[in-house]
Amino acid sequence: MIHNLSSVRTQSPYLPFGDRQDAPFYGRDILSVKQFNRGDLEMIFGVAREMKEMVRRVGSFDLLKGKILANLFYEPSTRTSSSFTAAMERLGGSVIRINEVHYSSVSKGESLPDTVRTLEAYSDVIVLRHPEAGSAELAARYARKPVINAGDGIGEHPTQALLDLFTICEELGDPKGLTVTMLGDLKYGRTVHSLARLLTLYDVRLNYVSPEILRMPAEVMDEVAEKGISQREYTDLEPVLAETDVLYVTRVQKERFASEAEYDQVKGLYVIDSQTMARAKEDMILMHPLPRITEIAMEVDDDPRAAYFRQMEYGLYIRMALLAMVLGKA
Amino acid sequence: MIHNLSSVRTQSPYLPFGDRQDAPFYGRDILSVKQFNRGDLEMIFGVAREMKEMVRRVGSFDLLKGKILANLFYEPSTRTSSSFTAAMERLGGSVIRINEVHYSSVSKGESLPDTVRTLEAYSDVIVLRHPEAGSAELAARYARKPVINAGDGIGEHPTQALLDLFTICEELGDPKGLTVTMLGDLKYGRTVHSLARLLTLYDVRLNYVSPEILRMPAEVMDEVAEKGISQREYTDLEPVLAETDVLYVTRVQKERFASEAEYDQVKGLYVIDSQTMARAKEDMILMHPLPRITEIAMEVDDDPRAAYFRQMEYGLYIRMALLAMVLGKA
Amino acid sequence: MIHNLSSVRTQSPYLPFGDRQDAPFYGRDILSVKQFNRGDLEMIFGVAREMKEMVRRVGSFDLLKGKILANLFYEPSTRTSSSFTAAMERLGGSVIRINEVHYSSVSKGESLPDTVRTLEAYSDVIVLRHPEAGSAELAARYARKPVINAGDGIGEHPTQALLDLFTICEELGDPKGLTVTMLGDLKYGRTVHSLARLLTLYDVRLNYVSPEILRMPAEVMDEVAEKGISQREYTDLEPVLAETDVLYVTRVQKERFASEAEYDQVKGLYVIDSQTMARAKEDMILMHPLPRITEIAMEVDDDPRAAYFRQMEYGLYIRMALLAMVLGKA
Repeated sequence: MIHNLSSVRTQSPYLPFGDRQDAPFYGRDILSVKQFNRGDLEMIFGVAREMKEMVRRVGSFDLLKGKILANLFYEPSTRTSSSFTAAMERLGGSVIRINEVHYSSVSKGESLPDTVRTLEAYSDVIVLRHPEAGSAELAARYARKPVINAGDGIGEHPTQALLDLFTICEELGDPKGLTVTMLGDLKYGRTVHSLARLLTLYDVRLNYVSPEILRMPAEVMDEVAEKGISQREYTDLEPVLAETDVLYVTRVQKERFASEAEYDQVKGLYVIDSQTMARAKEDMILMHPLPRITEIAMEVDDDPRAAYFRQMEYGLYIRMALLAMVLGKA
Repeated sequence: MIHNLSSVRTQSPYLPFGDRQDAPFYGRDILSVKQFNRGDLEMIFGVAREMKEMVRRVGSFDLLKGKILANLFYEPSTRTSSSFTAAMERLGGSVIRINEVHYSSVSKGESLPDTVRTLEAYSDVIVLRHPEAGSAELAARYARKPVINAGDGIGEHPTQALLDLFTICEELGDPKGLTVTMLGDLKYGRTVHSLARLLTLYDVRLNYVSPEILRMPAEVMDEVAEKGISQREYTDLEPVLAETDVLYVTRVQKERFASEAEYDQVKGLYVIDSQTMARAKEDMILMHPLPRITEIAMEVDDDPRAAYFRQMEYGLYIRMALLAMVLGKA
Repeated sequence: MIHNLSSVRTQSPYLPFGDRQDAPFYGRDILSVKQFNRGDLEMIFGVAREMKEMVRRVGSFDLLKGKILANLFYEPSTRTSSSFTAAMERLGGSVIRINEVHYSSVSKGESLPDTVRTLEAYSDVIVLRHPEAGSAELAARYARKPVINAGDGIGEHPTQALLDLFTICEELGDPKGLTVTMLGDLKYGRTVHSLARLLTLYDVRLNYVSPEILRMPAEVMDEVAEKGISQREYTDLEPVLAETDVLYVTRVQKERFASEAEYDQVKGLYVIDSQTMARAKEDMILMHPLPRITEIAMEVDDDPRAAYFRQMEYGLYIRMALLAMVLGKA
């Protein structure tokens, strides 16, 4: 139901006095990066900046006091689940966690629409993580309460893409003119697909560095090309390292390769260490969606350009902003 | 210890100023539907109606602020666990979840009395789900804090029965004179046993529709008969559909039958679809304890008589009422 | 990094107005009993007593409102996890639970330092339970937020030792001159090692009663001896029962013995029942870290000298005190 995402919900049985029904995004679902234009992003980032400021000043505050988030995770994701939980709690709200889905009604065969309609009897907003693409859209079709997609398989993970873009904006300012280099597994990395799509809203240059078998999918490249954004592909970071403003690293998994020998041949090319950083710009940033295994050496962590732990923190502010907005409080 | 359920507890180490020790149900356990008379039900439903009104008006409020619920689940039940969690959170209280009991001290062999006495050092009220009948009573015998039975095996699930009855009262008014038809697996369905028992407090007519091998147990029928309530048994819904005010559906599981052939023979008789609803009263309601698999077709969900999702919401109000009452706040 | 535990952290990105940075223990990690001197203990116990008084009077209060605890459990411990959760909630704070670590990023190979640095983006204090000795220290080295060790394998479990000592002080007053008898498995019992170490700060006499193969390790005995504390070893409780002020019981597990026959020979010596208690002092106390299986008969539970359930409650106050102190609020 992406086509009518902007329809305002007015039937909430828990509509408290004081909700601003005319607030932007009030009652809307957050399902895909495709639903946002630049104005939307600026609005979201503006609220996220306010959240960041409030967290720095007072830690938490009661903007969503009395509101309940149902955190429905059909597959584990400590990071995303904790981030939404913290976001809700820093806004004074409460969380119902349903992340042992293998034990639950769901494992007795209950359908996602039924689970969602049950949970909305108890909660004000639903965050859904599900292994199947399209599941967030399905849930949103049945739910009267807003649904936020926290990753649906090879589909979308819009809050990750928003926090990635927000990180770039906060660390480097307006993305206009930046060179963003994506490195590693660009084929299976949902993260880089969404970020590439979002970046088409800005005048950036994109470099894709990956092993031959893990190239950025044609589908994504076609979409980016349509928007007139410059894209170039490489199998080695060296040629573009010196010009890169944002180096976005993803893990290259051994399992993707036909043989260990094939993997051994390329793996060194996709590891960032102090020597790599020595040849990078002084004011670039190094990003990673985490968890990181060996693709960024721990020695890099103390480099001020290493932005991946700050990236986690930006994620908190983005999720606080989204929760406040869909609940009509920002 | 059902015989002395009404004994008031006065030794709580956490007794805060302002608890109304003379409040009805203060400090009591909620273990069985057998502990309630009509006056009790009216009191609980009165409080539940206030909860419903408050939730509609303000969403949440701080009646139980500072109180802690220990949600102790020895078997999974997303629905019941989430409902109690939401109930506590909408009242401003907090929840400690212990529902990975397979990992816990319990799996090291600790007894239920010890677990309960440990948890009450941290909490103000304990909600217990346990696979063994009688376990809630055992827990209550050792706990100084109130224990609420959230289902003990083939034993009781009193809050489910209360929410079922509350649904009937809210949707159709005084149950007096209503025809309530229970359909499906009446032998193993703890839910229908408890509801049938509770309904004996009202002047209703009961129909039981089930396969021969899944008939309502004689024990329950004897109890109902003693109260002078009319009961009739059928293997087919058709003869009573037109006169039914409340159709309570439960799932008929394939596993109950000796052979798949035997199951296939009857299963069609216990599925509700639009055609069924077309022959039902205009002002009847269709109930189901959920999760629903195939026994009610999804096409029925939009029928205003389909009450099963509203039933979930009534459950929230009932559990809010019970928590507030046993903690002396209502 | 135990040597610089007392370094004050001043870089917290969430430093709210009003935190008392000059408060004792502000921003410090709680990693080992070795970090405390008697003055520290008296300060902690003083705050714990205030917590006890506040809980008795008002149940909960908002000292840590807006603060978030990340409860990171790499192995299950219902008791400890619930106790910290309750402590945080009784202080008005919130909790993020990460205790399905087998599902989490960690199982994808993420390092503890990375997990900790991610969680501190969301939380104000981290409680860590981990199977490997030294892990709490490792986490603290990387975290900017305070880390509290909730047990790291055969390493330390300082909050358990503190609550054990606090129980003795609250039940019997100044430990000076008390005879403390530790019974059962003294070899593998992390609890008794830490308690013995802590008790060296007081002028007590220690008895160790255990099977030959489960004697108190030489390493611990050497440390205790260095402080000039009297220690005696026995294989039978009888000789010291009558003089014992504190009897601390731990479980003797069958698995520790070469054969069932060997176990059967000794097990009776390490079970406390009413007959044992009949020969004990009138004002002694019986302690146990729980869970208890058969090593203390249930018939003893009603004996006023049975302190093990009260011990759980003292644990709540100790953990409330520590959380408030490291967060600069006490």
